[in-house]
Amino acid sequence: MNRIDETGQSPASNRAGATDARSAAWRDDRRHVLHSWSAQALIDPVVVAGAQGSWFWDEHGTRWLDFSSQLVNVNLGHQHPALVEAIRAQAATLCTIAPYHANEATARAARMIAEVAPGDLDRVFFTNGGAEAVENAVRIARQHTGRHKLLSMYRSYHGATAGAIALTGDPRRWNAEPGPPGVVRFWGPYAYRSSFHARDEAEEGERALAHLQQTLELEGPHTVAAILLESVVGGNGILVPPDGYLQGVRDLCDRHGIVLIADEVMAGFGRCGEWFAIDRWGVVPDLITFAKGVNCGYVPLGGVIVSERIAQAYQQRPFPGGLTYSGHPLACAAAVACIGVYRSEGLIERARRIGAQIIGPALAAMRERHASVGEVRGLGAFWAIELVRDRATRAPLVPFNAACAANAPMAELVAACKRGGVWPFAAGNRLHIVPPLNIDEADLRHGLAAIDEALSVADRYAVD
Amino acid sequence: MNRIDETGQSPASNRAGATDARSAAWRDDRRHVLHSWSAQALIDPVVVAGAQGSWFWDEHGTRWLDFSSQLVNVNLGHQHPALVEAIRAQAATLCTIAPYHANEATARAARMIAEVAPGDLDRVFFTNGGAEAVENAVRIARQHTGRHKLLSMYRSYHGATAGAIALTGDPRRWNAEPGPPGVVRFWGPYAYRSSFHARDEAEEGERALAHLQQTLELEGPHTVAAILLESVVGGNGILVPPDGYLQGVRDLCDRHGIVLIADEVMAGFGRCGEWFAIDRWGVVPDLITFAKGVNCGYVPLGGVIVSERIAQAYQQRPFPGGLTYSGHPLACAAAVACIGVYRSEGLIERARRIGAQIIGPALAAMRERHASVGEVRGLGAFWAIELVRDRATRAPLVPFNAACAANAPMAELVAACKRGGVWPFAAGNRLHIVPPLNIDEADLRHGLAAIDEALSVADRYAVD
Ligand SMILES: Cc1ncc(COP(=O)(O)O)c(C=O)c1O
Ligand SMILES: Cc1ncc(COP(=O)(O)O)c(C=O)c1O
Repeated sequence: MNRIDETGQSPASNRAGATDARSAAWRDDRRHVLHSWSAQALIDPVVVAGAQGSWFWDEHGTRWLDFSSQLVNVNLGHQHPALVEAIRAQAATLCTIAPYHANEATARAARMIAEVAPGDLDRVFFTNGGAEAVENAVRIARQHTGRHKLLSMYRSYHGATAGAIALTGDPRRWNAEPGPPGVVRFWGPYAYRSSFHARDEAEEGERALAHLQQTLELEGPHTVAAILLESVVGGNGILVPPDGYLQGVRDLCDRHGIVLIADEVMAGFGRCGEWFAIDRWGVVPDLITFAKGVNCGYVPLGGVIVSERIAQAYQQRPFPGGLTYSGHPLACAAAVACIGVYRSEGLIERARRIGAQIIGPALAAMRERHASVGEVRGLGAFWAIELVRDRATRAPLVPFNAACAANAPMAELVAACKRGGVWPFAAGNRLHIVPPLNIDEADLRHGLAAIDEALSVADRYAVD
Repeated sequence: MNRIDETGQSPASNRAGATDARSAAWRDDRRHVLHSWSAQALIDPVVVAGAQGSWFWDEHGTRWLDFSSQLVNVNLGHQHPALVEAIRAQAATLCTIAPYHANEATARAARMIAEVAPGDLDRVFFTNGGAEAVENAVRIARQHTGRHKLLSMYRSYHGATAGAIALTGDPRRWNAEPGPPGVVRFWGPYAYRSSFHARDEAEEGERALAHLQQTLELEGPHTVAAILLESVVGGNGILVPPDGYLQGVRDLCDRHGIVLIADEVMAGFGRCGEWFAIDRWGVVPDLITFAKGVNCGYVPLGGVIVSERIAQAYQQRPFPGGLTYSGHPLACAAAVACIGVYRSEGLIERARRIGAQIIGPALAAMRERHASVGEVRGLGAFWAIELVRDRATRAPLVPFNAACAANAPMAELVAACKRGGVWPFAAGNRLHIVPPLNIDEADLRHGLAAIDEALSVADRYAVD
């Protein structure tokens, strides 16, 4: 039984020194909830009391404009009435059923996902989230090829289960090492900090492809089951691949019988102004992993879309994965509503338009005005402002994987954004500008102005 | 884009030869949904149209009494009004929020879980399901001990992500091998098929402990981070450990500084007539993994309950895991309601009572009547009927991990149960009797009678 009541306050509440003034929710959170990736005593979570559209607020009525879409999942903002209604209706009908049954919500969601997926990607295996989607994609690729090795990128995130974290190319995997064998990491295109000494985007794309080809050659292409990549790298920097890169990867995969897995957990479902980010280049992967935007995470849902050609094997041979909540009706009902809203409100196109007409130009102007802004990049509703101490050397505003003290400039910037009424998404030495796709134009401009103003805090650390 | 409309019917619908007579949901399912662990052409899923209490029905109105609780998760049966209402209310307030925020539903769920958890298990890291719970438990144990090796049992299931499936001791892991390094498997107590040539339960418990101690000795106990076990083994046979066994494991862990992880994903939250199955023996593990019964899976939810002593490290050091939907408000609101119902309707005690007074005696009587029943065992609402061809030799009714043809006797038995109006849970050569904890007494007796009758089908394969 709970002993906290006997032993007194938690360190966090001592530190805050204000337990009595805080709500029961805040106290229960501090005593009983472990938050992802955080040192619990070093955070002081906001108790979110409500949310609507692009705004959310705490118990005291402080409101923020959501430029994070939480973890880049509420593509339709908060509490979209069509999704809320779909969840309420499905809850009244059938909340859950085992994955060996069929039901209308799951079947419809699968059909609608297949309809918007490229090429012959027609079959869906549903999971609860992105990590499980990646786990299953990898297992399918290995079984399909009979090969074991997996190639993934430095600067990538694929989730936190053992298989997904091993494929991840950011520091979160360090705590999970040694992981499963067979992962080889390569470098993707990132012109602003080129690993290939390229002078422009086009050259970066070519050299990144040559590097991948060389890596394949030295790994033995016939030993490689899959190349896994984020079509547009999300959490690790909003890295948009140069034109031709993804087609080049596709060609390499075709040449060597390698499965191409596009991780569209963050970039998919409209975020990049396409149903799937990879559609922008007309490239068809063999497997797509999805989560987040499929239903905005109103109910946990993810999955893999499998090409018919690969799925055929599972007509007679058992599919090699499963989970209790695969194809969860409540989650799938939210997906059906969500895809319907993307369509009926024209939000895929809208994301493209606000990126090209509002966010892109606004960020370009910030780059002119602020010494701390090294580069701005993105597309759709998926943008990054990369912050530097020195535009000439491109020295980042904070070191890679900075711990507390070294991260102070970013922490100050984030605080300034929040004071300005905007909840930002910060990662490394970057702000990601990732609002809901349906954000009001006035809100969007207002939020961009607030970010613009907050950047003066970062400028103090930068040479002019 | 979806090409199925161009290429015609799927093999499954050809096979059934009745596409036109089936609903759109059935057709969409067959064309677009990949079902867990199944050869898709060899199944013909029921389209579940609705469910209430211990019953569910298909589109044509055929009804079944749910003796499976789906995947042993709807401990309160289907569409319990308190859970449905809690989900509908939370949906109207706040469906989702990122895990770095706090919110009332999550905080309350964490507190209520801590309140019913044993010992100082006071902090909760929330996941979407059981596999992710196990993944995180293992990472915590490794970090806490600074050791790498993990011990788990043959005949166990821990989920299908890379880390969880590697720890699993059943055939589902074979497709995922080679998995991550560091897993050592040992044999748990199973008196009916003793690995230790024990003559009774007590001796089985002692010998299983001695075996574990020897295994630790030869593995080097100081290299072992955790022992992971299902407090009562679920999917692999409802194996209730002899009295003293779990205490013995606890003692071994204490002696060697090993973290004891109780996987209560299936056995917890009332299924065994206790909040957690391990409570029956008064043993306090260091970590408990949960999912399923915490909110009956009405919204995907799982997690790890962490002892305060271990969690302290995460005050100043980052917690080494995360996922987009950790602490999902909608899922947690369902958990708050669900734990409330267990309490207000006295269902933990009720599960104990129906096990002792109704299910146990009924199964014992079936064992008397049916030559095919080798053993019956269980507790609470968690029972197995183990089927044999020959009670003397204990030869199983179907071989281990039987493929289609060899599994015919079980398939016939399952079909007979369904004809009798009961949806059974079949696994290997066993029927598991795992109804909702709040099943009507009349329904329970009726279902047991139907199983009793269906067993005559199995008897045909058994020597008398
Ligand atoms: C590209 C990508 N893949 C996978 C994941 C993991 O998804 P989840 O957190 O739902 O497990 C994420 C999460 O941010 C992601 O951005
Ligand atoms: C004991 C146990 N652990 C873990 C799991 C995996 O849970 P999930 O299917 O939610 O990933 C299961 C699922 O049946 C289980 O029974």
